Amino acid sequence: MADFDYGTLLDLPARVRAASPLVHCLTNLVVSNFTANVLLALGASPAMVVAPEETGEFAAIADALLVNIGTIDSQQLLAMRFAIAGANGAGKPWVLDPIVAGLPFRMNAARQFISQGPAAIRGNASEIIALASEGQTKTKGVDSLGPAEDALESARALAVESRTIVAVSGETDYVVDGTRTLAIPGGHSLMTQVTGVGCALNAAIAAYITVARDPFLGTAGALLAFATAGEAAARQATGPGSFAVAFLDQLSQLDILSMPVGASS
Amino acid sequence: MADFDYGTLLDLPARVRAASPLVHCLTNLVVSNFTANVLLALGASPAMVVAPEETGEFAAIADALLVNIGTIDSQQLLAMRFAIAGANGAGKPWVLDPIVAGLPFRMNAARQFISQGPAAIRGNASEIIALASEGQTKTKGVDSLGPAEDALESARALAVESRTIVAVSGETDYVVDGTRTLAIPGGHSLMTQVTGVGCALNAAIAAYITVARDPFLGTAGALLAFATAGEAAARQATGPGSFAVAFLDQLSQLDILSMPVGASS
Amino acid sequence: MADFDYGTLLDLPARVRAASPLVHCLTNLVVSNFTANVLLALGASPAMVVAPEETGEFAAIADALLVNIGTIDSQQLLAMRFAIAGANGAGKPWVLDPIVAGLPFRMNAARQFISQGPAAIRGNASEIIALASEGQTKTKGVDSLGPAEDALESARALAVESRTIVAVSGETDYVVDGTRTLAIPGGHSLMTQVTGVGCALNAAIAAYITVARDPFLGTAGALLAFATAGEAAARQATGPGSFAVAFLDQLSQLDILSMPVGASS
Repeated sequence: MADFDYGTLLDLPARVRAASPLVHCLTNLVVSNFTANVLLALGASPAMVVAPEETGEFAAIADALLVNIGTIDSQQLLAMRFAIAGANGAGKPWVLDPIVAGLPFRMNAARQFISQGPAAIRGNASEIIALASEGQTKTKGVDSLGPAEDALESARALAVESRTIVAVSGETDYVVDGTRTLAIPGGHSLMTQVTGVGCALNAAIAAYITVARDPFLGTAGALLAFATAGEAAARQATGPGSFAVAFLDQLSQLDILSMPVGASS
Repeated sequence: MADFDYGTLLDLPARVRAASPLVHCLTNLVVSNFTANVLLALGASPAMVVAPEETGEFAAIADALLVNIGTIDSQQLLAMRFAIAGANGAGKPWVLDPIVAGLPFRMNAARQFISQGPAAIRGNASEIIALASEGQTKTKGVDSLGPAEDALESARALAVESRTIVAVSGETDYVVDGTRTLAIPGGHSLMTQVTGVGCALNAAIAAYITVARDPFLGTAGALLAFATAGEAAARQATGPGSFAVAFLDQLSQLDILSMPVGASS
Repeated sequence: MADFDYGTLLDLPARVRAASPLVHCLTNLVVSNFTANVLLALGASPAMVVAPEETGEFAAIADALLVNIGTIDSQQLLAMRFAIAGANGAGKPWVLDPIVAGLPFRMNAARQFISQGPAAIRGNASEIIALASEGQTKTKGVDSLGPAEDALESARALAVESRTIVAVSGETDYVVDGTRTLAIPGGHSLMTQVTGVGCALNAAIAAYITVARDPFLGTAGALLAFATAGEAAARQATGPGSFAVAFLDQLSQLDILSMPVGASS
């Protein structure tokens, strides 16, 4: 039985829409447009301020920060460091999207960032396993491309080590912290055939945790919102092009969530 | 009564399509794709040439230049300076999109750019108020998030100070210069739920002023084109995803504009 | 009569989908999202790794590399050099998209890259003519905006000089090497009204040559796939917005190609 009340996350879409949190996104160049449109569809307010001259100041003003290292370079690394310092200094939550891809430059960046206290981390199974493994915690290997379940042990280790929330995406998604685990089934395979759905989910997590009682609920609410909208959009789509369009439309119509059959904690 | 003839702007869509002006866009990374697609839908020819090694030369070749500071950094600042110098040297018009966001780095950039003589500036009410206020002209404050009407005084002050056209977006849009004011109602709230509609509008202004008798008419024509296409697209849309698709389709079918009921000068 | 068997390219879509090649894309910032979505729709796996610290290592890991100079700057020039060296060192094919635009900085980059042995080059007529002309081969001039046929002589000269495959896009597309020429009719004019269709085609070529017996067939297969999907999408579209959506849907449904009427070699 869950040690939290589902009811506390089911109205998150309406609360995000009412609060319209300003989400500062430092993300990769492939998905910046889609990420902004997802945040707008959810009723949040996206802002991509990227210069190292500005990110620290702006992250302190914004309600939440997204750090996605998918196309990180040396300038963006600097911009992200300043942004994280700005967010931390102002007590604003930030979310890490660790697209580590087996490359040392960004793995170092991800590890540095994790030590700065993200409110949440979300990735796929191989990313979470790679991150936990780098931290010398016990995992099943760094090259897994398997289901989210394979990364649950790593996710818990990473959550404990870093005192954060960790979400793992897969056919069933999982949200864990040091003691709790929530499984969220649902969604649709078309979500993996549109670039940036996972990246935009991290932006949604950033928006949701600004109105949630704790980051665990905010993270779970964003995953549930995506699973719900993804299923509805897939019913309207004939391929990934029409799916992306329908997904934005569905996100814009989310109000009160329903817990999907099979959710467990 | 207007001191210009509406008729002179109603055929601008057809004239842009016939001339296919080359619009050099230095814009933010979130909206570059949508901006290019909007220009193509209007029959213009977009080109994003961004390196400081190239922008001065290319801006002189192109028919018009767009400068949007939404994701400005130090390299883009340099690239923009060179581009503006190239455009000015070749007598080509350029349009400024001042996404100032209360940040000094970009506010300084915006003020520098304005001193170089843009043909037109378009922003929302708070952006125009902030810009005019920085120039020590009388305004109602820099943090306004109010309707476009709140920024009319600032827009006129900025237009006079900088000898340019200023447009303010809102439920009703306004175009002003030192002596004239045109109000353009219409459009749809979905236009604010898709990232980059405002940014793409500035690109459209750049295209339209290349075929208009004066920048005031070109600016007004682009605003009218967007209001017209936005209303038509909203009738076909079920959310922001389908709106963006329908908006591009509608822009591609614009030929002769009709003045919306309620337009005034 | 062709000196290859059409049958060897008609099942390329299914073979790409089965192999899901990892395509490392160094491309311009306007089209990165659409390019990733096209690769996903074809069943390939896109990855945009852009930092000079990472591109050499990642290009060696990936199955193929795309180099598109549309928004090249000094950092991307460096990142591309490292990527090409990494791909060449690991024996991985790479494709060049030469958006030369009459600018010396990028023309120099393009010529440098061509000397490093791309598996294929695809551009429009004026780009191919400009490239061949720079190499002091005999062409009809650098400013042609004419049909692909105008660039056939240049394409063959470039293919011989650089021992590569050259494709020229136009109403009819052509693929040439030193001895063979294949004409691929089809496609639709809406393909030129969506930004990045040509850029994404080069990414598709990169994916297809990983599963083709020779790059000539892989290149031809990608062109044929685009022509086929473009025609089908145009029948569903009411403008460039809906065309782009339908094009992705159609690409995702490609399995076995049919040679269009009029194809010749």
